[in-house]
Amino acid sequence: MSSAPPRYVYLGPEGTFTEAALRQVPGADSGECVPVGSVITALAQVRSGEADFAVVPIENSVEGGVTATLDDIAADDDLQIQREILVPISFVLLGRREMDLAEIHTVSTHTHGWAQVRNWAAAHLPQAEFVPAGSTAGAARGLLEDTTSYDAAVCAPLVAEQTGLPVLASAIEDTAGAVTRFVLVSRPGPVPAPTGSDKTTVVVPLPEDHPGALMDILDQFATRGINLSRIESRPTGAGLGSYFFSIDFEGHVAEERVKAALAALYRLIPGIRFLGSYPRADKMRYTVPAHTRDAAYRAGQEWVTAIIGR
Amino acid sequence: MSSAPPRYVYLGPEGTFTEAALRQVPGADSGECVPVGSVITALAQVRSGEADFAVVPIENSVEGGVTATLDDIAADDDLQIQREILVPISFVLLGRREMDLAEIHTVSTHTHGWAQVRNWAAAHLPQAEFVPAGSTAGAARGLLEDTTSYDAAVCAPLVAEQTGLPVLASAIEDTAGAVTRFVLVSRPGPVPAPTGSDKTTVVVPLPEDHPGALMDILDQFATRGINLSRIESRPTGAGLGSYFFSIDFEGHVAEERVKAALAALYRLIPGIRFLGSYPRADKMRYTVPAHTRDAAYRAGQEWVTAIIGR
Amino acid sequence: MSSAPPRYVYLGPEGTFTEAALRQVPGADSGECVPVGSVITALAQVRSGEADFAVVPIENSVEGGVTATLDDIAADDDLQIQREILVPISFVLLGRREMDLAEIHTVSTHTHGWAQVRNWAAAHLPQAEFVPAGSTAGAARGLLEDTTSYDAAVCAPLVAEQTGLPVLASAIEDTAGAVTRFVLVSRPGPVPAPTGSDKTTVVVPLPEDHPGALMDILDQFATRGINLSRIESRPTGAGLGSYFFSIDFEGHVAEERVKAALAALYRLIPGIRFLGSYPRADKMRYTVPAHTRDAAYRAGQEWVTAIIGR
Amino acid sequence: MSSAPPRYVYLGPEGTFTEAALRQVPGADSGECVPVGSVITALAQVRSGEADFAVVPIENSVEGGVTATLDDIAADDDLQIQREILVPISFVLLGRREMDLAEIHTVSTHTHGWAQVRNWAAAHLPQAEFVPAGSTAGAARGLLEDTTSYDAAVCAPLVAEQTGLPVLASAIEDTAGAVTRFVLVSRPGPVPAPTGSDKTTVVVPLPEDHPGALMDILDQFATRGINLSRIESRPTGAGLGSYFFSIDFEGHVAEERVKAALAALYRLIPGIRFLGSYPRADKMRYTVPAHTRDAAYRAGQEWVTAIIGR
Repeated sequence: MSSAPPRYVYLGPEGTFTEAALRQVPGADSGECVPVGSVITALAQVRSGEADFAVVPIENSVEGGVTATLDDIAADDDLQIQREILVPISFVLLGRREMDLAEIHTVSTHTHGWAQVRNWAAAHLPQAEFVPAGSTAGAARGLLEDTTSYDAAVCAPLVAEQTGLPVLASAIEDTAGAVTRFVLVSRPGPVPAPTGSDKTTVVVPLPEDHPGALMDILDQFATRGINLSRIESRPTGAGLGSYFFSIDFEGHVAEERVKAALAALYRLIPGIRFLGSYPRADKMRYTVPAHTRDAAYRAGQEWVTAIIGR
Repeated sequence: MSSAPPRYVYLGPEGTFTEAALRQVPGADSGECVPVGSVITALAQVRSGEADFAVVPIENSVEGGVTATLDDIAADDDLQIQREILVPISFVLLGRREMDLAEIHTVSTHTHGWAQVRNWAAAHLPQAEFVPAGSTAGAARGLLEDTTSYDAAVCAPLVAEQTGLPVLASAIEDTAGAVTRFVLVSRPGPVPAPTGSDKTTVVVPLPEDHPGALMDILDQFATRGINLSRIESRPTGAGLGSYFFSIDFEGHVAEERVKAALAALYRLIPGIRFLGSYPRADKMRYTVPAHTRDAAYRAGQEWVTAIIGR
Repeated sequence: MSSAPPRYVYLGPEGTFTEAALRQVPGADSGECVPVGSVITALAQVRSGEADFAVVPIENSVEGGVTATLDDIAADDDLQIQREILVPISFVLLGRREMDLAEIHTVSTHTHGWAQVRNWAAAHLPQAEFVPAGSTAGAARGLLEDTTSYDAAVCAPLVAEQTGLPVLASAIEDTAGAVTRFVLVSRPGPVPAPTGSDKTTVVVPLPEDHPGALMDILDQFATRGINLSRIESRPTGAGLGSYFFSIDFEGHVAEERVKAALAALYRLIPGIRFLGSYPRADKMRYTVPAHTRDAAYRAGQEWVTAIIGR
Repeated sequence: MSSAPPRYVYLGPEGTFTEAALRQVPGADSGECVPVGSVITALAQVRSGEADFAVVPIENSVEGGVTATLDDIAADDDLQIQREILVPISFVLLGRREMDLAEIHTVSTHTHGWAQVRNWAAAHLPQAEFVPAGSTAGAARGLLEDTTSYDAAVCAPLVAEQTGLPVLASAIEDTAGAVTRFVLVSRPGPVPAPTGSDKTTVVVPLPEDHPGALMDILDQFATRGINLSRIESRPTGAGLGSYFFSIDFEGHVAEERVKAALAALYRLIPGIRFLGSYPRADKMRYTVPAHTRDAAYRAGQEWVTAIIGR
């Protein structure tokens, strides 16, 4: 990383939920923050060194890219997750100007965003026609341009703050309390220090799908008292019957049980990729069974060492 | 189902990859086929009885909706998967009229579609600006309207056939050979007969995430020689630490080993949902280990019955 | 079984711990009880029909025969365990006549019996020489004969009762509270009714010893919440690397979870032998996990049946 | 160990199969070899330092003591198995003098020995009466004394060599080719170097018997590709429901996979006892799965170390 301020890329344009995630990253405000057109582009810029960090959605995104994110991060081992970020998914309705809802004839947003406010719109904007946009933020920013034909846009609260456009309605999402997850990605480097509430992500290719293979993998976690928090099988693109598993599990690579599980997985499947150990965004603490704590690992190794040293 | 022709809804508009999937469904051509605006709407119409069947993307969709599909189908047990459908993902470039690529200044498509032809576009349309659309098909159909400002659209080959718009380039996808998966969904009813190459989908809620819980679930498959073909953990929305697993596995509920696995899962987790047994679209046959074939099950039961009947 | 009184054979001679076990069998007092010279003989007489029942030691025997019992019962599937019997292992010292311990110069018993009173003998009979005998009871009965050269014998309390020989010391065993286990064996027939505190014995041959094979077997019990109470690997005699496992587990073949485990084992290893379900001698009750009770099995099967019957 | 020649004790008297086992121990011929009256005594003398080594039967013994051996070795962790020894079990018939079989009226041996030649005796000595003895060798040596009343004895071939008594018949065992196993035991000390064909013995107490506990133990072996060659559950004597497992498995404590399995077992059950790693008597070589060889362990650890050291 150069002495220049670090360069962050994110799934743009300005005002997306992804930018809201980026704003939570300590130090991002003194870096250069650049919106790019896709998750693939964002990750490619980190890989090539054009950018130092990317913020990309990893779960339930409003603006897409989740499976693309997983697949692209998994495709190689030249990226590392540094942090996860939780963003509340709440929508506002911005208008070209202050106006009554009844005055709105057309409203624009990303199709996924529209899906999430559909009930509210049916109740409050029954007359309005939907105009798709490439992003929620793009729809909103379009309101600033004279040539735009629609009256209002559905987007993240951040855009109101950035543009000063009037908020005609807020918290209009059909499901309250939703949160989605983003990750901060860099090239491989030092792993963030353990905090006692950490998560590790790995990608495990499975060349042949047989009933015991996944069990063999998961057994490495279960036998060491390690909880999984996410697992997804994804086709590798290398043909039918070829899969990889993207797995998040609790714990940090500096912990003995995690070291042991990773080493065991590597022995089984040398193509495993380590994508990072990083603090949990929810700071939820987990209980490590007594027999898999670091002290237990040390005691077990000392016992064996003593036998060999008799 | 009424004596009227069956009503099929699909993620529209006309000309999407989802419609291409629907066209593969036997009998759909004599039914009523209706595009709707979202996966959620499509499934809701089946649930309410407005439609008999829905075709929705379940994997890697160009036009989105995959996690929405999974989550919505999983939310209740009032839907049943009747069939899976594989559609090759190939894109064409349609023009408002016959023109040279160099003449194109603006091109429209869904953002996900654009992501999949980005390299081709960079090489062949370096001058063109991207205009987002709500769907690939919508972008193409826009070319038929006078008020549309863009010159060309990226979409499925189906739209060319439907509209007669000129094909300026074809097979322009950056990754050749990609295929994506759709499902035909109905209300619960008779399970399609086994074909020897079947798949079963279940949803398994996991109230508490502990290291052995997932193992206990997967053990029910492994111990009966049943391969998984897909597994995804998804947050239930009921709060942190609450998950469900969406699982596809080989085999049909009419097979003894599948019956036994399902009954065992039900005993462990009564909230399990059966979403259907249906033919594999790839017709790939699987080998059932001798000791878990129907004949083995019958032999085992006969042995035990003979002991009890001594 | 003929209308004549049933014939019981046991590891003799009269007065052994095995006879003490036989005396606990309801109905044995109205049968014909015949001591034989070895476990092998006892079992052979049941197999041939010469006897109806045999009582033989299965664990920790004072007078030997345990591995012989296991191996011989396991050798075929033409025997069935009807009952287990626990006998407290307590020893008395009988004298040819009333005498002080200091007067005893020689003492006889089975070598195994001698091993179990060694500490007591070292403390109380330091001067006495040990004379081996074929059984504890045989040593004691020898005292009734004029030609016997030794002064005292170590044997079961039963012999004192049978012979009237004076008890010079009692409860002389070095380990108090020991209990050993015997079984009542018949030819195959109706399985005793379940009592809620039952045990089942099986023999499972393992043609090839590989790391997962035993796990596969035990998994059939664990996954159904069935405790093992005994497991022993024994060489089959068919050459190195060929084993069988003799396993006792809680539960009765009339229980659904036991039926399911047995059927699953049969599918894996058709050479499995069922040796009986019978009441536990200790009447200890076990807790069956809710998800493996008969009601859970029925509920699981009904759920699957309802799916198939849609 | 003193500079005096090492002292070996064995289950006597002279001429037993146990002495035959001792004779196979390299260096035993230059040590002091002392028969003792029981396995318990032999082991106690090693524990106390009176003896340096004991040779005791561990499997299928003719003269008893197997469960006593297991239980006594398991009772503490102050003994170590240095070697296993296989002895062919073959019997000869020795006579007081050269005589025809028809002249024999009485024959003596240990009851277990008698059980193993019963068929031969029924065919060739139908007229002979059996006189029990404390050991096969003791029976034979009795023939040297004038006061002995019996005519012949069944014993190991070794006794013929030691006593010069005439061999009236040889290889009279009913089952040809039987072999039994003995172990050489010392106080804890350096573990014999690995040979590539080794065995390790452990004792694992199981305070509560629950369905998963044994699985958890065995999983530590299976997951590391380690075969078991023997497993026995034994009551601890500490009350019903309390067990220990005596387990032999392939491999040597100097191997990484064995180290890892032992350390994992220690973490689960700190009461585990290591009883030795020693060469297999049958020299049978085992195949270690590639992913659990020492090189794989090193590769796995290096991978994890490289991640931490980024």
